Amino acid sequence: MRDHLREIVEDNTTRRGMLFDYVVQILIFLSLLSYAVETLPQIPPSLKLVLHYSEVVFIVLFTFEYLLRIYVANNRWAYIFSFYGVIDLLAVLPFYLGGFKNLTGLRAFRVFRIFGALKLVRYNKAIHRFKIATGLVKEEIFLFLLVTAIFIFLSSVGIYYFEHEAQPDAFASIFHSAWWAVVTLTTVGYGDIYPITLGGKMFTFVILIIGVAIVTVPAGLVATALSRAREIEMQEKHDPSKKQQ
Amino acid sequence: MRDHLREIVEDNTTRRGMLFDYVVQILIFLSLLSYAVETLPQIPPSLKLVLHYSEVVFIVLFTFEYLLRIYVANNRWAYIFSFYGVIDLLAVLPFYLGGFKNLTGLRAFRVFRIFGALKLVRYNKAIHRFKIATGLVKEEIFLFLLVTAIFIFLSSVGIYYFEHEAQPDAFASIFHSAWWAVVTLTTVGYGDIYPITLGGKMFTFVILIIGVAIVTVPAGLVATALSRAREIEMQEKHDPSKKQQ
Amino acid sequence: MRDHLREIVEDNTTRRGMLFDYVVQILIFLSLLSYAVETLPQIPPSLKLVLHYSEVVFIVLFTFEYLLRIYVANNRWAYIFSFYGVIDLLAVLPFYLGGFKNLTGLRAFRVFRIFGALKLVRYNKAIHRFKIATGLVKEEIFLFLLVTAIFIFLSSVGIYYFEHEAQPDAFASIFHSAWWAVVTLTTVGYGDIYPITLGGKMFTFVILIIGVAIVTVPAGLVATALSRAREIEMQEKHDPSKKQQ
Amino acid sequence: MRDHLREIVEDNTTRRGMLFDYVVQILIFLSLLSYAVETLPQIPPSLKLVLHYSEVVFIVLFTFEYLLRIYVANNRWAYIFSFYGVIDLLAVLPFYLGGFKNLTGLRAFRVFRIFGALKLVRYNKAIHRFKIATGLVKEEIFLFLLVTAIFIFLSSVGIYYFEHEAQPDAFASIFHSAWWAVVTLTTVGYGDIYPITLGGKMFTFVILIIGVAIVTVPAGLVATALSRAREIEMQEKHDPSKKQQ
Repeated sequence: MRDHLREIVEDNTTRRGMLFDYVVQILIFLSLLSYAVETLPQIPPSLKLVLHYSEVVFIVLFTFEYLLRIYVANNRWAYIFSFYGVIDLLAVLPFYLGGFKNLTGLRAFRVFRIFGALKLVRYNKAIHRFKIATGLVKEEIFLFLLVTAIFIFLSSVGIYYFEHEAQPDAFASIFHSAWWAVVTLTTVGYGDIYPITLGGKMFTFVILIIGVAIVTVPAGLVATALSRAREIEMQEKHDPSKKQQ
Repeated sequence: MRDHLREIVEDNTTRRGMLFDYVVQILIFLSLLSYAVETLPQIPPSLKLVLHYSEVVFIVLFTFEYLLRIYVANNRWAYIFSFYGVIDLLAVLPFYLGGFKNLTGLRAFRVFRIFGALKLVRYNKAIHRFKIATGLVKEEIFLFLLVTAIFIFLSSVGIYYFEHEAQPDAFASIFHSAWWAVVTLTTVGYGDIYPITLGGKMFTFVILIIGVAIVTVPAGLVATALSRAREIEMQEKHDPSKKQQ
Repeated sequence: MRDHLREIVEDNTTRRGMLFDYVVQILIFLSLLSYAVETLPQIPPSLKLVLHYSEVVFIVLFTFEYLLRIYVANNRWAYIFSFYGVIDLLAVLPFYLGGFKNLTGLRAFRVFRIFGALKLVRYNKAIHRFKIATGLVKEEIFLFLLVTAIFIFLSSVGIYYFEHEAQPDAFASIFHSAWWAVVTLTTVGYGDIYPITLGGKMFTFVILIIGVAIVTVPAGLVATALSRAREIEMQEKHDPSKKQQ
Repeated sequence: MRDHLREIVEDNTTRRGMLFDYVVQILIFLSLLSYAVETLPQIPPSLKLVLHYSEVVFIVLFTFEYLLRIYVANNRWAYIFSFYGVIDLLAVLPFYLGGFKNLTGLRAFRVFRIFGALKLVRYNKAIHRFKIATGLVKEEIFLFLLVTAIFIFLSSVGIYYFEHEAQPDAFASIFHSAWWAVVTLTTVGYGDIYPITLGGKMFTFVILIIGVAIVTVPAGLVATALSRAREIEMQEKHDPSKKQQ
């Protein structure tokens, strides 16, 4: 009986296991949708009631699923204290602790359950390649994040000296300037804060030419590493003895 | 006679077939241009009349082309219910159904005929490479779209909690926040909606550093896959027996 | 004598030829700088006078250079009607035609002379690689430009229908919408024009997720093609007989 | 004794050397944090006092470190006039010269010490690969920077002619237009300055389609070059005799 249930709950290669996983994923999706709809202003009381009852149904089902997962687990404590175990608990616990009040805030934890929805694809090739790619470029990514951090700090300090006097509110401190730096270097550019002095504009000119390249390199690194990971995978397939690190 | 017409209408390797296709493409382009010009405010009545009559001419020509395509098709029903067959019908049908009124809205369907204009290049190398490239990275692209979707949801929920109280109109619900999330993570940054609280700004800071990379990786994936597709194509040419999947 | 001058003017491998080219480049740069400075509002009359006289000096020197180039050219008419020949003439002609008036507008042609400043590097490896790279990806680039054009048109038509009624001035016609489309899809996002209706925002949401990738792919294509061009160049060096197309 | 100290200060492969470097890095980080906090408006007097005293402590420690580095250096003058030697001096000198006044401005020099914090990773593989990659693409990067500079100039001149009359303040000169050009071509798009005339918008339309690709190519070049550098490194490891330049 327990072995039979385990096959359904934990295995996702059988037809029943896949069905179980799909049902759970649809439930998570619906629960998140109902959560988002609830934040809409001016929803009619009737819809509010529907959302409230559906939330109770979700809680019951997720609680049942949580207990089921504990029941079938080979090592129960290992599951309970695993990443997914804690998330599965956090998805339902706020409801029981808070009763029917103040649920809105605490339910935000449930969003992390979406990662559980990735389970079905966990073992597929793309993730495997992604792991190879991460291994290939993790040092470069770290280096670029460090350089980005230093670059953002230097940009913040620089713009602070150029703009603080002219715009004492917008560039009130180096922390305020850091907000400008990240919004500018990622090229978002909301337009809520920008240099107006000649010095500040010239500084931004130089910073942008250099900085935009620095910030966008990591994405290119990941893309080329994934391309390389595909080749490594193909070599492994054709000649399993010749594995590259 | 019908074989001769078929050669002109369906074949694009002969000189006559290419000429026919170019004429149709120019007609589509002119018809779309006249459609766009018609939306301009304050166009003089004389131009309006010209546009009206040119529209009638386009309709007559497109109807004639549509009937011609049915006539020459080997399998007529297959063409009528094919993607291009439906589009070719939708390009003219609204005119006959609606008479001379309310055409503006319905004519929008015609824009899809532009895809037909791609016919000439349909068989060329670039499209072939693009198909190979899509095959190579479709799993990674799917994975990144999934991660992007989850990331946009988490960003929306996060910013909603930080900014809802301070800006109840701009961040009225999680759906409103999702608009902010997509405009920010694609680095468009209109500036119509942005965080103003300290928490919201710090959250955006972190989200941007991680998120910009996630959103721009797929473009890099396509680019590197196209590069790889070129190599595969070259290998196939030099050694047709050694085809890679 | 003429052979000697030709060596200085046209050859850039000798020390004298390089010196000549550097002097011309510095003159072009100074002339462009003086041109830019002249547009500054409220420049003192003394500086205006200096700029005026330096302009006369530039004209004299550029005229001398132009005549020198005609004198030394093997095929004089070929030079006069070549791209650089026409540009070299346009750099000085407006001065003689317009006398001392209305020069500002016509001098803009001189900016094209900067391309002449690229002469020194014209034969170096990077340009060679760039040519190989262009040959490799010209079909894909063309295809992406076509898809981008169609995508911008469809986005313009779509947003026109969603936003025209709500914002009749900003989205006055499909051409106005095309301005929005290009500013949005290149992720510039000035914030002068953006959707405000629910439909328009949802449409933009979808357009952005797809469109940003399309617009940024060509840059990635060029980058990977340049990488491939380097490899081809290296193979040619090691084994000149095995040239790839 | 001196050899023993040198091992701690200059060597970062031993446990003690690493510990020393980590302590220095944490001190630099704390000193920069206290520097940033000091710029915050309305900090309470008590915190101000704490920051003041912590600054004195940092100065004492950095001075001690500086003297220590001179003491252990094999070639003392070489260290003093080296890049890091000058930076280490600039990190403390302003304090002694300026007494306790006007320190805020001069302390900005200290930010350059962060580069010293990179010491630990200075010899690791990622930096090595980065050097190989830089060698591979330095010509292309230079070429693209040149093309970017010319493109920004041409865009500035072009938009100046289209927009100067309509917006004499925003597009007051070619230098003002250059600010627009860099903010637009890097796709930041603050929205503080943008074209409003039909000609200016059409010009921007064309400029954007071409320019965005030019500006983002260098980042892709670095990414693909780093990928290639990894392959070269791997070949060197497997076959040290076959080194590629």
